[in-house]
Amino acid sequence: MKNYFSIQDIDSLEQWVDEAIEMKKTPLADKNLGTDKTIGLLFFNPSLRTRLSTQKAALNLGMNVIVMNFTGEGWSLEYGNGTIMDQNTSEHVKEAAQVVSQYCDVLAIRAFAKLENREDDYQEKVLNSFMKYATIPIVNMESATGHPLQALTDAITIKEHKKTNKPKVVLSWAPHPKALPQAVANSFVEMMQQMDADFVITHPVGFELASHITNEVPIDYNQENAFKDADFVYVKNWSSYTDYGKPLTDDSSWKITENKMKLTKDAKFMHCLPVRRNVVIDDAVIDSENSIVIKQANNRTYAAQLVLKKILKNI
Amino acid sequence: MKNYFSIQDIDSLEQWVDEAIEMKKTPLADKNLGTDKTIGLLFFNPSLRTRLSTQKAALNLGMNVIVMNFTGEGWSLEYGNGTIMDQNTSEHVKEAAQVVSQYCDVLAIRAFAKLENREDDYQEKVLNSFMKYATIPIVNMESATGHPLQALTDAITIKEHKKTNKPKVVLSWAPHPKALPQAVANSFVEMMQQMDADFVITHPVGFELASHITNEVPIDYNQENAFKDADFVYVKNWSSYTDYGKPLTDDSSWKITENKMKLTKDAKFMHCLPVRRNVVIDDAVIDSENSIVIKQANNRTYAAQLVLKKILKNI
Amino acid sequence: MKNYFSIQDIDSLEQWVDEAIEMKKTPLADKNLGTDKTIGLLFFNPSLRTRLSTQKAALNLGMNVIVMNFTGEGWSLEYGNGTIMDQNTSEHVKEAAQVVSQYCDVLAIRAFAKLENREDDYQEKVLNSFMKYATIPIVNMESATGHPLQALTDAITIKEHKKTNKPKVVLSWAPHPKALPQAVANSFVEMMQQMDADFVITHPVGFELASHITNEVPIDYNQENAFKDADFVYVKNWSSYTDYGKPLTDDSSWKITENKMKLTKDAKFMHCLPVRRNVVIDDAVIDSENSIVIKQANNRTYAAQLVLKKILKNI
Repeated sequence: MKNYFSIQDIDSLEQWVDEAIEMKKTPLADKNLGTDKTIGLLFFNPSLRTRLSTQKAALNLGMNVIVMNFTGEGWSLEYGNGTIMDQNTSEHVKEAAQVVSQYCDVLAIRAFAKLENREDDYQEKVLNSFMKYATIPIVNMESATGHPLQALTDAITIKEHKKTNKPKVVLSWAPHPKALPQAVANSFVEMMQQMDADFVITHPVGFELASHITNEVPIDYNQENAFKDADFVYVKNWSSYTDYGKPLTDDSSWKITENKMKLTKDAKFMHCLPVRRNVVIDDAVIDSENSIVIKQANNRTYAAQLVLKKILKNI
Repeated sequence: MKNYFSIQDIDSLEQWVDEAIEMKKTPLADKNLGTDKTIGLLFFNPSLRTRLSTQKAALNLGMNVIVMNFTGEGWSLEYGNGTIMDQNTSEHVKEAAQVVSQYCDVLAIRAFAKLENREDDYQEKVLNSFMKYATIPIVNMESATGHPLQALTDAITIKEHKKTNKPKVVLSWAPHPKALPQAVANSFVEMMQQMDADFVITHPVGFELASHITNEVPIDYNQENAFKDADFVYVKNWSSYTDYGKPLTDDSSWKITENKMKLTKDAKFMHCLPVRRNVVIDDAVIDSENSIVIKQANNRTYAAQLVLKKILKNI
Repeated sequence: MKNYFSIQDIDSLEQWVDEAIEMKKTPLADKNLGTDKTIGLLFFNPSLRTRLSTQKAALNLGMNVIVMNFTGEGWSLEYGNGTIMDQNTSEHVKEAAQVVSQYCDVLAIRAFAKLENREDDYQEKVLNSFMKYATIPIVNMESATGHPLQALTDAITIKEHKKTNKPKVVLSWAPHPKALPQAVANSFVEMMQQMDADFVITHPVGFELASHITNEVPIDYNQENAFKDADFVYVKNWSSYTDYGKPLTDDSSWKITENKMKLTKDAKFMHCLPVRRNVVIDDAVIDSENSIVIKQANNRTYAAQLVLKKILKNI
């Protein structure tokens, strides 16, 4: 593995999950692995969990960490080929990526979807440009269409909490006042296809994710039906893929409630956070004993640390 | 001590001051105490001294430091119970505090008063929410109503410079073009009540601090009278507590001048900084030999380091 | 050397360049030199290369690094003497510089020209104020009128790539849509006067740099003529010094093209970056084999590291 761009960069999900769970027992065991190695964290968007957990992961491995909020602290980047740069962009990613590669050993980047143009977002121009021009490994800290550190986290969390070999896992769309990217849902769906599970997606009609991502995963437009006998309910809002970036603001009937959770097989409740309480989910659900969102967030450190460890062993 | 939220968390001010002065002689003596421990510094407001001195204190103890400007870099936090989060807040402090607790060992937070609603500010919702939900120690880097790291700094500084066992210390209000919080004054007043001193507050009528903070401390509305025979003049502006947040913009007669300082017993001049020259104080005063504001600022490092040392010894 | 403010602080350019090239072979050789020493990086303006390379240099020397974006994270500074600070500035540089000096061992500062008033910019009030009041060494990370870390970088890069003892070096003005400072050009011109080279500046009439900087350096208003037989073409836009801060927006005839580069003696192409492609230079030039802009940027680390090493050895 050179870059950790998507779930497809995991050669064996099961093995990675086992390694991460093992690493979690002695997180400082590889503290010398990163000596004199520097990771640069480049943020084009806000971040709490990713910002802190990736730093913590790097520190656990003994790395130096340089954090940069690219927007505001740096120059506005140009991604086009042959552009006459007489407008608002000051530096081409071709130079930026090559230059940064000389100051760091690993680069982690967050660059959200703009939700303006589907083709643009799905081309992943920021991450792909950095991967093209950088000469060091790149880690995706949530790109326009994927959040593979989150999905690896989710796999670890499901493994830790599952009570049967082949749990039923439901990915449920939920309402949200603003248009959100499909990144978390996409990577979760990709990841689940590598896991031995009975996996189903439930969302309102018109909120289908990209078919090249969902593939053969069953979709149930009836949320309550989908929840039946579930062992895990994974909740996330996303805006429309077909009517790109359009949110569905008025259907609060999709909110996750205690009553809906009663349909499940005592399911664990998961969410990547941040979550808007009483819009996406009721307080009663996220505050219940079955809510594992905090434990899930804790695993962000170990997902990041496993990825960085594998990268460090490779350079 | 679990948290360092206010002056009330100091069990013995005299002992703490002595320990800090001792620590200042060999600031790197405890450099191994913080090995593999991480402090997160969360800023909701600007900071110079606090930002740098707290980092320096943590580095002196060998800790890892993660700095985050919550406003801008993170998500907008919700503090209300049961709120339907369909407006501008993206994450509830309940999740944020629990999550961050898993990535750090200590959390230090700066969250100023908004000066819009007294009850809101005096409820200290940011700090109290983090203390309620976090599972790690919290350090107050200036909250809505208190700045206990500054007050501990001030106690150290007075101890270092006092020439008598029971010095006369005057806290004097001074003019300022903008409305300022009462935090620094509050903590100073609380701290002074634990110190063996002849302490008096002087300010214009209507600028009384909260009576649950000033208690029996004498107030003199005549500044010149209050200055007589003072050993220390501690200057700070604050906006009104009764007419909450209202500044007094036109009474420059309260400015600290050379002539007023002549009324004192060769008093040392103190201010927490930043200070607006020639509005709060004349150049001649802050530039005089009796001004110890720079030495005072230096003690910020040792106040923070003492607090962190005590916390580290406890975890 | 106490401060590294300008090229004039280099006692022997040739020796420094040789030391930097030597240091580049084993960049971690002095890793213990900076133990328990802290550098504060204060940014009043955006930065990519300087931000990351200076951090990397400090890490290579084992220093602690504290980064602060002064604008936004700190208080608005006052520089005037005797100012009645009742307007927008909250803290005087006199206090800020003295205070920061107590938390750090070295201070590096970036503060661009405002291009509003030539006298103001050339007085270098930010850097000069910090040098006046700080009690620790100051490093210039690009000030209003100079960028000596860049110029030292350039000297290293020319030394590494020159094929003759006395190469012909051309500093060429190039078009840019916005008004830019003269800092990079100034320091490059100052540096070149300490190097054994055939040095010429070419720019449109009216874009003469300050005569106290160019001194006897020949100026050729004919770009093509200047390029003849050049071994190095160093490209940079700057706005007018005489008609201060005024850009020349419409003369694209000064753009660097393949055809112009053919006039040279197979010259290496240099630029400090960021650069606007197809405005300042054609893609074909920056993407050519003779473009050494990425290698040049890499030397930023070693220029900074050499400066910090010399400072550390002195304190």
